[in-house]
Amino acid sequence: MSNFKLPPSLSIHGNEKIAKDILSRIWGKKGVFTCTVANTLTSTIPGISDAGDTPELTLFTPAADAELLVLGKTVCMKGIPINPGGIPTPATLTQAALEISNMPFFIVNGGCKVKPNLPCIEMGGEYGNYVTSGKAVSNVKKVFENGVILGKMLAHGHDFVVISESCAGGTTTALAVLMAMGIIKENLVSSSSPNNPRELKTKTVMEGLKAAGIGIGDLANDPLKAIGCVGDPMMPANIGIIIGAAKHVPVIVGGGTQMAAVIAAAVKIDPSIVGNIFQGTTRWLMGDPNSNMAKIMDSISPDIPIVYVNMDYSSSPYEGLQAYEWGYIKEGVGCGGSSVAAIIQSSGKVTCDELLEKVHEIYKKIMNFD
Amino acid sequence: MSNFKLPPSLSIHGNEKIAKDILSRIWGKKGVFTCTVANTLTSTIPGISDAGDTPELTLFTPAADAELLVLGKTVCMKGIPINPGGIPTPATLTQAALEISNMPFFIVNGGCKVKPNLPCIEMGGEYGNYVTSGKAVSNVKKVFENGVILGKMLAHGHDFVVISESCAGGTTTALAVLMAMGIIKENLVSSSSPNNPRELKTKTVMEGLKAAGIGIGDLANDPLKAIGCVGDPMMPANIGIIIGAAKHVPVIVGGGTQMAAVIAAAVKIDPSIVGNIFQGTTRWLMGDPNSNMAKIMDSISPDIPIVYVNMDYSSSPYEGLQAYEWGYIKEGVGCGGSSVAAIIQSSGKVTCDELLEKVHEIYKKIMNFD
Repeated sequence: MSNFKLPPSLSIHGNEKIAKDILSRIWGKKGVFTCTVANTLTSTIPGISDAGDTPELTLFTPAADAELLVLGKTVCMKGIPINPGGIPTPATLTQAALEISNMPFFIVNGGCKVKPNLPCIEMGGEYGNYVTSGKAVSNVKKVFENGVILGKMLAHGHDFVVISESCAGGTTTALAVLMAMGIIKENLVSSSSPNNPRELKTKTVMEGLKAAGIGIGDLANDPLKAIGCVGDPMMPANIGIIIGAAKHVPVIVGGGTQMAAVIAAAVKIDPSIVGNIFQGTTRWLMGDPNSNMAKIMDSISPDIPIVYVNMDYSSSPYEGLQAYEWGYIKEGVGCGGSSVAAIIQSSGKVTCDELLEKVHEIYKKIMNFD
Repeated sequence: MSNFKLPPSLSIHGNEKIAKDILSRIWGKKGVFTCTVANTLTSTIPGISDAGDTPELTLFTPAADAELLVLGKTVCMKGIPINPGGIPTPATLTQAALEISNMPFFIVNGGCKVKPNLPCIEMGGEYGNYVTSGKAVSNVKKVFENGVILGKMLAHGHDFVVISESCAGGTTTALAVLMAMGIIKENLVSSSSPNNPRELKTKTVMEGLKAAGIGIGDLANDPLKAIGCVGDPMMPANIGIIIGAAKHVPVIVGGGTQMAAVIAAAVKIDPSIVGNIFQGTTRWLMGDPNSNMAKIMDSISPDIPIVYVNMDYSSSPYEGLQAYEWGYIKEGVGCGGSSVAAIIQSSGKVTCDELLEKVHEIYKKIMNFD
């Protein structure tokens, strides 16, 4: 729509025409948010994932994120998921966006070793093996098919669907799947640390591809097989949801480079969804000097735009939040997608300042400040 | 609200003031529908349940009902759930109401032996044992607590919540729980057959109470224990959902006498929900000469009204549907609650004729008529 005006809280990368067409169709309408949680043992390889204070704790992060969203506190572990530096999970921003928008939301269990203590939508998946095994995910087809059904269900009665993930180690498995599909031939994925362990990730991925007996690009036409070999259990669930939902309503794929593998697979399986999906993410992710979301997306399709929220934590009085401006975290738990969605539902009335204020409220409560 | 006008498609029993207050608060608003599926081996006791062509098939009925709602066809069995006479499941009416209203809906797995082939919200329950064992349901407290969490989640972003059930054998377990709680001292529950096997049900229930070592009214103050002894796994999930949701938004308890046990338990555990819940059911159930919903409800609380939909299948060209007028089926799968909700969402514009027309469309498609 030519006369659609983007508020200053949002920016677009890529095909602006498609982005504005989708935005204008869902502006002021009501969506539903889902977060798919899953584990891959890959996150416990020392140095791979910073989404947890220690390699072992990375397995608790998805469940703890889900508990934080639903219960406002964690049950499966003490405290909230943090990076080794003590920087809080992006779920704090997701929570803020969901509260402000009053958007319905559900947790999807893609396959967890540590399950959240709350009712999840069950997909029949198992937690993932080490990507280095070359046999990373079981039951891929069944979980994908369940995803398609769930996507259709979510499209019923909602004007748009937001999907997201919490799966530590997921940028490594995303890199592996993107390479198996030949989408990228170099390491462009992000990290929750400003010191992206790119060499370690690449080495780990190459080990996984070798164990699976596949070369770069070998599975360009069989993304579900690529996931079975070197992916994680979040992927088939979310790929299914996109395909099931995008036939009926627009889908916002909330997340960073981790979700690029999901988008690439979904578009390969069903190209007809292009024009009805965009990625929803954060300014932090787009500005990351150590990854290149834009370049990955350009390789997947020129017609899947990115809409990102211009959140800025530099004025926050809390160091844990300021750290987002120093290259920590950037994305996760759909913090970008849910923020974009909150702005859409309010027809642009919700601002970044309002979101930040709510984040402060949540953060103070969780940290027992004041 | 004194100037609230009930459309001819709906009638009220009980406290009209409370009913109209709730209706006026949600009139034209957007709800969410859930159906909790569960199994109890009680349904396989010959003669107890007609919700299936044979005693064994009664275990497939909940899963098949769920599949019908979500997929529009059954996967776990051939054909659709029918009574021995070939009368189709009330899920056909639920489907019609959900389609017309475009209301979002989810299947909740309270505890199934035969699971639906689709993504369910998982409550951590197991399928139920024979009521005659006196140890009918395991994990009651955990499922109840998950229900409370889910109820709160469903209240987020929806103006009201509709709950329902598909659990064959459920009127027998309802009778058992209502007697253990001392709500009724005689058999007033319904049956999906016009020949309600009241003596068999009473005998079965008395056997269960004896096995559990409890007399009538002994568990008046411990409904969750009553369920553990002689209930079914649908109950703790739905009791939790009511309590979790009704603190925030109105709840419509869709169903017949089976749901009376759920209502009785919920009100005993949290009396503060009174004034924010009503039962949503059908004219068929209210007019049943072999049960007495009105009397049961009066014993539970004078302030929980019944709102029922005046569906009438007597003009239907299909015998399977006409049979509803002869005392078959009456309720189930939230057919009454979803119909009431569809009328509410449309501010009364949806009529019984429109619902019937849609039922015909669905019925013809399922039966491969034309």
